[in-house]
Amino acid sequence: MTQAVGPTRAYRRLSVEERRSQLLDAALNLFAHRAPEEVSLDDVAEAAGVSRPLVYRYFPGGKQQLYEAALRTAADDLEKCFAEPQDGPLTRRLGRALDRYLAFVDQHDAGFSALLHGGSVVETSRTTAIVDGVRRAAAEHILAHMELPEPPGPRLRMTVRMWITAVEAASLIWLDEDKQPPLDELRDWLVEQFVVQIAATAGRDPQTAAVVVRALSLEGPDGAVGELVRRVLPVVADAAHLL
Amino acid sequence: MTQAVGPTRAYRRLSVEERRSQLLDAALNLFAHRAPEEVSLDDVAEAAGVSRPLVYRYFPGGKQQLYEAALRTAADDLEKCFAEPQDGPLTRRLGRALDRYLAFVDQHDAGFSALLHGGSVVETSRTTAIVDGVRRAAAEHILAHMELPEPPGPRLRMTVRMWITAVEAASLIWLDEDKQPPLDELRDWLVEQFVVQIAATAGRDPQTAAVVVRALSLEGPDGAVGELVRRVLPVVADAAHLL
Repeated sequence: MTQAVGPTRAYRRLSVEERRSQLLDAALNLFAHRAPEEVSLDDVAEAAGVSRPLVYRYFPGGKQQLYEAALRTAADDLEKCFAEPQDGPLTRRLGRALDRYLAFVDQHDAGFSALLHGGSVVETSRTTAIVDGVRRAAAEHILAHMELPEPPGPRLRMTVRMWITAVEAASLIWLDEDKQPPLDELRDWLVEQFVVQIAATAGRDPQTAAVVVRALSLEGPDGAVGELVRRVLPVVADAAHLL
Repeated sequence: MTQAVGPTRAYRRLSVEERRSQLLDAALNLFAHRAPEEVSLDDVAEAAGVSRPLVYRYFPGGKQQLYEAALRTAADDLEKCFAEPQDGPLTRRLGRALDRYLAFVDQHDAGFSALLHGGSVVETSRTTAIVDGVRRAAAEHILAHMELPEPPGPRLRMTVRMWITAVEAASLIWLDEDKQPPLDELRDWLVEQFVVQIAATAGRDPQTAAVVVRALSLEGPDGAVGELVRRVLPVVADAAHLL
């Protein structure tokens, strides 16, 4: 890339694929930090250092098409965050995937909020389908780590999907509240929420119970579950009358 | 109302308020059971037994205006579900409010799905604001039952809002999965999810811990928490190595 340094860079002829990807990068960067209403095609052209007609040549559908293409790219990036080796305690794997997810939320703050708050001018059944696809991918990754001997039943699937929705809600609240608490605290707390939600379902569903028993056998006393138990036990110590 | 019986009924002159409310009832009934795309102004006129121009006289904004007015009415009805006397164990109060909420979901199935799945043609920032208003009202009702001596802090609020989002997600999945499991099982399970989510947060937040201690003191051994503990303890019995 050394020939790209200096004033000739802007005039280098890009291939169709390179140009498209350059325009998408510029659009994604703008849509990440502003509500879609606040991004114009002129902004994208300016950010990419090209003319407005050139943007239209690549995206004849204008802003809507650019938005959907940028969302598709962002969704692919996000799905990559979920990949995690099937190794070690489940809470540690979940924590690492959450670290990457929350970093994505942090980096795409305004766009993430606008997309998930709903009611945006660029929202269509296609954008909704893209977002739902990411949710489905997240659920499949989590279920895969459970290494189930049979397909997941409705209670286990519902618990996983509820937790994913709760993570989204927490991410939106976190953005609304000036990114508080710090990300590592938010991550630990979301992992703990997962642990207790799955444990509560285990009380009603044998398949989930088997997952919990196996997951607990992989945990060490210094892991997330041990810490959770040590924090919560003193709070519920006076509840012996319920047994 | 005896004079309304018989063939003259359809011709009785309604007041402006009565007519408006009759049109809204017809619209709400249609929007409850079909996606908004599948409801036309002609359908509303036919269901109300009036002409299409009459519908336009009351709702000059056409279908969009009717939809938003019907949603406003449904949102008011739903908020009424949340009212519950501050008496008895918190889990029992929550269970009763959930019974009413889930009955509402059951009765407005297709409309509820279409509204919350997003990407609908009638979705605007106004419809989103109405839905957010219902969520806020639900959170305020729950927090009011905690009778806090000081305003709720961010962790407690976040936990309550996450659970509300999770309830919405569970309702949508329940509708997608042919209304399985039965409503009383879904209710008990959602109450249990609330209990464990708030208990996990209690491990990190003194305000939430105080709420949990007080809530547990109101519970009896036959209540929701006692049952949950008895169901889950056998599953986690082998986890003594974490203590």
